[in-house]
Amino acid sequence: MLITLDDGSTEPLYRQLRDAITEAIGEGKFSRGELLPSSRGLATELGVSRNTVNTAYQELLAEGFLEALPRRGYRVSPDLRAHIVSPQPQTHAGGVDWATRIDRAAHDVGEVWKPADWYNYRYRFIVGQPDELNFPDRSWNRALRQATSAPHRGASLRDGIDHDDELLVEMVTRRILPARGISARADEVLITLGSQHGIHLVASALTSDTSTVAIEEPGYPDARQIFSRRGATLRPVRVDATGIVLDETTLRGVDLAFVTPSHQYPTNVTMSVGRRHTLLAQAAKHDTLIVEDDYDSEFRYVGAPTPALKAMDNEGRVIYVGSFSKFLAPGLRLGYLVADAELIADLRDRRRYAIRHPPGIIQRAVGLLIDEGDYHRAIRRSRKLLKAKWEHLSEAVSAELGTSPETTGGLSLWIEGHRELDSGALATTALRHDVIIEPGSASFLSRPAPSHFFRIGFSSIHTDDIAEGVRRIALSIRELA
Amino acid sequence: MLITLDDGSTEPLYRQLRDAITEAIGEGKFSRGELLPSSRGLATELGVSRNTVNTAYQELLAEGFLEALPRRGYRVSPDLRAHIVSPQPQTHAGGVDWATRIDRAAHDVGEVWKPADWYNYRYRFIVGQPDELNFPDRSWNRALRQATSAPHRGASLRDGIDHDDELLVEMVTRRILPARGISARADEVLITLGSQHGIHLVASALTSDTSTVAIEEPGYPDARQIFSRRGATLRPVRVDATGIVLDETTLRGVDLAFVTPSHQYPTNVTMSVGRRHTLLAQAAKHDTLIVEDDYDSEFRYVGAPTPALKAMDNEGRVIYVGSFSKFLAPGLRLGYLVADAELIADLRDRRRYAIRHPPGIIQRAVGLLIDEGDYHRAIRRSRKLLKAKWEHLSEAVSAELGTSPETTGGLSLWIEGHRELDSGALATTALRHDVIIEPGSASFLSRPAPSHFFRIGFSSIHTDDIAEGVRRIALSIRELA
Repeated sequence: MLITLDDGSTEPLYRQLRDAITEAIGEGKFSRGELLPSSRGLATELGVSRNTVNTAYQELLAEGFLEALPRRGYRVSPDLRAHIVSPQPQTHAGGVDWATRIDRAAHDVGEVWKPADWYNYRYRFIVGQPDELNFPDRSWNRALRQATSAPHRGASLRDGIDHDDELLVEMVTRRILPARGISARADEVLITLGSQHGIHLVASALTSDTSTVAIEEPGYPDARQIFSRRGATLRPVRVDATGIVLDETTLRGVDLAFVTPSHQYPTNVTMSVGRRHTLLAQAAKHDTLIVEDDYDSEFRYVGAPTPALKAMDNEGRVIYVGSFSKFLAPGLRLGYLVADAELIADLRDRRRYAIRHPPGIIQRAVGLLIDEGDYHRAIRRSRKLLKAKWEHLSEAVSAELGTSPETTGGLSLWIEGHRELDSGALATTALRHDVIIEPGSASFLSRPAPSHFFRIGFSSIHTDDIAEGVRRIALSIRELA
Repeated sequence: MLITLDDGSTEPLYRQLRDAITEAIGEGKFSRGELLPSSRGLATELGVSRNTVNTAYQELLAEGFLEALPRRGYRVSPDLRAHIVSPQPQTHAGGVDWATRIDRAAHDVGEVWKPADWYNYRYRFIVGQPDELNFPDRSWNRALRQATSAPHRGASLRDGIDHDDELLVEMVTRRILPARGISARADEVLITLGSQHGIHLVASALTSDTSTVAIEEPGYPDARQIFSRRGATLRPVRVDATGIVLDETTLRGVDLAFVTPSHQYPTNVTMSVGRRHTLLAQAAKHDTLIVEDDYDSEFRYVGAPTPALKAMDNEGRVIYVGSFSKFLAPGLRLGYLVADAELIADLRDRRRYAIRHPPGIIQRAVGLLIDEGDYHRAIRRSRKLLKAKWEHLSEAVSAELGTSPETTGGLSLWIEGHRELDSGALATTALRHDVIIEPGSASFLSRPAPSHFFRIGFSSIHTDDIAEGVRRIALSIRELA
């Protein structure tokens, strides 16, 4: 018997058969050019219907594994390579010396650590991953279906070359930006594949190995990586309880400053209005451009939302980076940039020769979601849930860890441990208790990085697990001491 | 009356009302901080239900246009900027001098011309756009729904950081590549946002302003743009009826060669096996890397499919660029690269700091589409339809234009007109007859570019319109003469 089927499998029979034949070919049980059993014969042998065998053969034909021979049946394609199904590592004697061919920039600026299978940990205090229970399935699926139907079909399926989805851009300018205090025309907006793509495009257009970029300290490691890979010199600027700390000379010689005013990454502090005025005035004085990463402005739990820094910008100096996917689902990868039309035109051109544009169907579906009101309803629901988590967490942290960070929003708490705490060791110890926390050292540019900070994210963990999770963090700290 | 509703509109009433209030705010009919009419009052005035008004107010509240005042109703948010709804071009006195700030590379290498509203032309002989009638709606919508349900939900919604969708990668290695004669492990595959993204990543890693890149002449303008933007020197290499023409010295000093062996862009000729051997031998001799853009290998209408050039590569010298979206729908933006694991690891790292990864939901949906067999069924259907179009077109071109390009596949015919033909003028004349053709000059690097070639694409035009469209091209040629 060359082929056997697994009785216990829940896969449709024809797919089991298809896979079994592919494997048999891979294992050399059928060789190239060999004629396969007739569908009648194989059906009888395996005790399945002839139709099942025919369906499997048809798929293998379509995929190129088999060829049809008129009046004789099917044979294994003579062009198939050996070991095609379970390929072996290829050893290339006399091949390419990749190390000398790849243009590698030096860029060792630290990354946030977390286990690859973080979702298997119950007490996953991580940031940037969704609570999958909270995704608006019904309205999302409806929007996707609509997106491939008239009159939306063309926008979803066509190659837009360098264009954005018109509906989505209209929704951004009319239904998203006003609430952030930002007024923008369509040609001042570019849709991006997530907010990080926006930062990358800006870095490509505006920085090089002769640039100096100011970044918050502590700050967002991915932004540091992106600017550092351009060869730019990074200048860390201290952050206190009201945001970035600037004096008259901080921005001297700085081409571009990267800031997170709504909820600073990673401390979650909100930049005060006074600091915003200082930042804009200093930037004007030194002709510094500003990138405002407003990645989670929706998540404010106390008081009124602060307008964006961009809303105070009268010179077109601020480049605003926004995200749709942060709260909907990061896997969707959708964001936008707001900036001067001249810069947007250049970034659009760069995007066109890299990815052309974010997938039309996702742009149109999110546009529809906003137009139908589902988007803002989902944000409100999400904010309510996250506020509850935030309150739970703040309470537990205060009770168990004896500290209460004074912030009003965000998706995490930034904890300063006692001076001797090694947050890397704490993360390792916590992991043994089924807990993930993020050591803070990756957020610092200075070396040696302070090691007594860590971050507790609450977007992905379930509400009921928060208190026990924090108890386990406290336990881990005691174990370490 | 500050607000009026349009009786003829098919929009739900609450959304009409929402939009009308937004506009009234934008036009200054309501000012910042002003109290809105009570829902009861406005409902009576407009003759709609109170519920309609409340729903509209709730949405405007969620979007930040309004604020709720306990026991008093809603007011316009005091933070809203003037003219927020119909923004004016911002003039920035003393603003940023973008021309000096943007790092612009010189890159004038021509682009394919077509009108932005090409889809409104009946006889649209263009390439790279889908026949929207041919998209597999039902299976695609099913795959999307599956993708956000268990057990696929996590893969679709999470931030994958630098990972690809496991199912899709498995489908590529097991169900796509074998038919192309390619054997690859998971770590030799990278999912890209369309095939152009693959070329862009390769250009970033492997070329710089000291590189020389060989490209086919005529060839693919987007690839020329991408390498030229890296500052690389382009070396055009002639193409004849069996592919790129190489002698012993053609690749001397060439770091990388970009080729389209299945159906050469734009001539659609297939590179012969002899030429493939020569190319690989010469590349080994001169240590040249090869990028094989296999963008439309599925579309072969005569004879057996040729294996990929990559299938003959024993040195790991060929970087294979594939696409899912070309035939499914270019707007989906999904492709993949196959190359040496060391290179793939570097490209993955670059991708992570630019876009992170293509949207999880699209990766998983296409993975499911392949696994269910729907993908290959759709290709077969599509190929059948395109073959019919190709035959129609070849016949009409032979009858009306007196020429018959000898190719076996592709999505267009490449036509050599008489020596004096100005294909740019022809395109303009044809446009007046509701016909779009693509002048061939953008495909040449040499200057002055030969102007008597043009391309007739048949992917987007409907079958029944082909004969009349070609008749109109012939008419336009006569008008020009």
